[in-house]
Amino acid sequence: MAKAPVLTPQADDFPRWYQDLINKAELADNGPVRGTMVIRPYGYGLWERMQQEMDARIKRAGAQNAYFPMFIPQSYLTREAEHVEGFAPELAVVTHGGGKELEEPVVVRPTSETIINEYFSKWVQSYRDLPLLINQWANVVRWELRPRVFLRTTEFLWQEGHTAHATYEDARAYADMIHREVYGDFMVNVLAIDVVLGRKTARERFAGAINTLTLEGMMGDGKALQMGTSHELGQNFAKAFHTQYLSGEGKQEHVWQTSWGSSTRMVGGLIMSHGDDNGLRVPPRLASVQVVVLAIKGDDAVVAKVREIGAALEAAGVRVVVDDRTDVPFGRRAVDWELKGVPVRIEVGPRDLEAGTAMLARRIPGGKEPVSIDALTQLVPAVLEEDQALLLRQSRERREARTVDVTSIEEAVEAAATGWGRIPWADLGPEGEAKLAEQGVSVRC
Amino acid sequence: MAKAPVLTPQADDFPRWYQDLINKAELADNGPVRGTMVIRPYGYGLWERMQQEMDARIKRAGAQNAYFPMFIPQSYLTREAEHVEGFAPELAVVTHGGGKELEEPVVVRPTSETIINEYFSKWVQSYRDLPLLINQWANVVRWELRPRVFLRTTEFLWQEGHTAHATYEDARAYADMIHREVYGDFMVNVLAIDVVLGRKTARERFAGAINTLTLEGMMGDGKALQMGTSHELGQNFAKAFHTQYLSGEGKQEHVWQTSWGSSTRMVGGLIMSHGDDNGLRVPPRLASVQVVVLAIKGDDAVVAKVREIGAALEAAGVRVVVDDRTDVPFGRRAVDWELKGVPVRIEVGPRDLEAGTAMLARRIPGGKEPVSIDALTQLVPAVLEEDQALLLRQSRERREARTVDVTSIEEAVEAAATGWGRIPWADLGPEGEAKLAEQGVSVRC
Ligand SMILES: [Zn+2]
Ligand SMILES: [Zn+2]
Repeated sequence: MAKAPVLTPQADDFPRWYQDLINKAELADNGPVRGTMVIRPYGYGLWERMQQEMDARIKRAGAQNAYFPMFIPQSYLTREAEHVEGFAPELAVVTHGGGKELEEPVVVRPTSETIINEYFSKWVQSYRDLPLLINQWANVVRWELRPRVFLRTTEFLWQEGHTAHATYEDARAYADMIHREVYGDFMVNVLAIDVVLGRKTARERFAGAINTLTLEGMMGDGKALQMGTSHELGQNFAKAFHTQYLSGEGKQEHVWQTSWGSSTRMVGGLIMSHGDDNGLRVPPRLASVQVVVLAIKGDDAVVAKVREIGAALEAAGVRVVVDDRTDVPFGRRAVDWELKGVPVRIEVGPRDLEAGTAMLARRIPGGKEPVSIDALTQLVPAVLEEDQALLLRQSRERREARTVDVTSIEEAVEAAATGWGRIPWADLGPEGEAKLAEQGVSVRC
Repeated sequence: MAKAPVLTPQADDFPRWYQDLINKAELADNGPVRGTMVIRPYGYGLWERMQQEMDARIKRAGAQNAYFPMFIPQSYLTREAEHVEGFAPELAVVTHGGGKELEEPVVVRPTSETIINEYFSKWVQSYRDLPLLINQWANVVRWELRPRVFLRTTEFLWQEGHTAHATYEDARAYADMIHREVYGDFMVNVLAIDVVLGRKTARERFAGAINTLTLEGMMGDGKALQMGTSHELGQNFAKAFHTQYLSGEGKQEHVWQTSWGSSTRMVGGLIMSHGDDNGLRVPPRLASVQVVVLAIKGDDAVVAKVREIGAALEAAGVRVVVDDRTDVPFGRRAVDWELKGVPVRIEVGPRDLEAGTAMLARRIPGGKEPVSIDALTQLVPAVLEEDQALLLRQSRERREARTVDVTSIEEAVEAAATGWGRIPWADLGPEGEAKLAEQGVSVRC
């Protein structure tokens, strides 16, 4: 008798599988205000690790963290014409504060280009102040009509980088460096998602940018997800806010700018890239819990042994949790850790103790086998590295298998039904892009 | 001829000194919406280090990070009577979202007890789910009529812990543990502020709590600053939100709760505790920059040497910055690092190189002396530890010198003019507290 599946199978209904996984693995709940989300501890742990890895890369790129207010005077947004047009339909507006109606309503930031330029225009005086490289970790609000947890939420968490440079070339090179060395490196080498690095068409560009670089990942259903973007803003905001500097030649010049962002949407991308019908699979380099050591039954010797194994692995630099909740049935706990996608489970029962072995269950390739307890601190780090590489290889193989070269709109629509189509821009153009959009197919990069 | 002071002297006008320091050390700016603030990179670096140190202690206390939406339905706040009464005058209200008027207005969280209880009531089923220990790092909004940067701002950054327990005793012990082992330990041993641990009077309690523990620090002007609070909430929110569990005896019981918070106000406390007429003094254990190595003049050999010293100190585990901006006058850079309160400056010029020495300038005790460059990696960590201890000793000595035992309202008012008065509660009572309030004197703990 086959046991009932824990999750709706992916092949039956991918969006429902996604929602099931988020509920059962306790990643997030819907919030009370439409489109908001509650990120539960295990889901937040994934985001915290993303923040750590990204923050280190952002600092290596020379940017410093700061914090700008989330309340922006409504008038700021209207100063850059394309920007306000792009964001006006998504704004949340505060009209009352401290028990009174406000003289000027304030908006909750949908992004911070405007307020940041207001301060850049004060801080930047001369070429010596450039480049100015700032990042912030913050919440932003974009009112969402078709919300989906992690992917499209009214409030989400993100980092937004904002920089000012003396020249077009310097700004362009910086946006490109962030694109490759921060986002690309993190997504490929930590998230194990074989993203394609490219640029958006004019139609899909950020509101106020002259060029938008994007990283697109292929999800388990063959669809694309935008995982992060890096914009060249040209001098659009600089002119709107008069962000100027005195050049070496003694002339006032507007700065050239970039902005770049990545968000909790990456948690959704992680789930849809690596999840399977048994739950999530977390890449070891990202995992907040790389290994769980489970006591199968409540036996003092067993509990002592799992704690000993946990301590030894922790000393070896592994992120480990010991599960000795022997009052909860073992089967239920094993399914739960599988759902949560912890890469390695080490299971110890009374019979294992006698043999000096433990069962090593691997979530990523699947399967389990007995191993010597003494060998664990040697074995586990190697297994984790192997599994990290395997996830990336699977991501690449899926993308390659489901991407076809096409030369016409008709072929592109067909390709999009099961994966991606690759078409030369010369065969497509803005008109072809518009036709694809009518068929529900988007040009990603 | 005495040079003009960089800051308004503390003795002339302490509040103005505070504001001067924040501007000149580039810690923060006022935001465009009244009462908001822009935290600049150096100020944010102080907050990031506070977060790191606090977060490690919070995790050791067993709490896990999570994230709840900042938008709360207005109706949630009204469920706990004292809570809504306390916060209603300070709320920011969103009435429009996505271009439409909302059916029910939402408030921006002033704190999250209500929304968190809504979810605790779903997540907690049985005694096995307790204690439930959650923390979040977030922004909150309390409309502020008399704003002051870092101390009282409309939007501020903080951590808020929220826990649910099976018994009164367990909740009480947890609030007390956070009070001592998270807040007390961090403030004394990292911030080097000799805080007094106590409890608030009924009048000063958090809106909805049955007991509020507080940590009060004495600032440079002899006034008190509340540095963090830890509340026993009893069953007030549990009853309002029906947060119940099935006990071991099979009965439905309301949980007992705690909440506890500390915020960017601590940055203000740090400034007012340790700052002097030359600027900030940052305790070495907190400092994001513990040592700056300065090249006095632009000479290739000097620049090479300061970089070498910087690398050696970094390898020795010191948080170090190399300042080789020799196109900026040395005097201006030295004053700037002094303003920013970096504990140790190592200054190297061409003559020092010949002698194999550098000037070691100590911000905390003051003074400078030549030291052998070869001895720096040994010397600097010891100096940093000594300076950490010195700051704490100075904080303690000030508090002791400016606290007097009093037995009457009159004496208490007099003591508050220059410092603190210590009065037995039996000599004061709620009536005495009200009389003191008329004189502008508050009972802190
Ligand atoms: Zn201009
Ligand atoms: Zn109830």
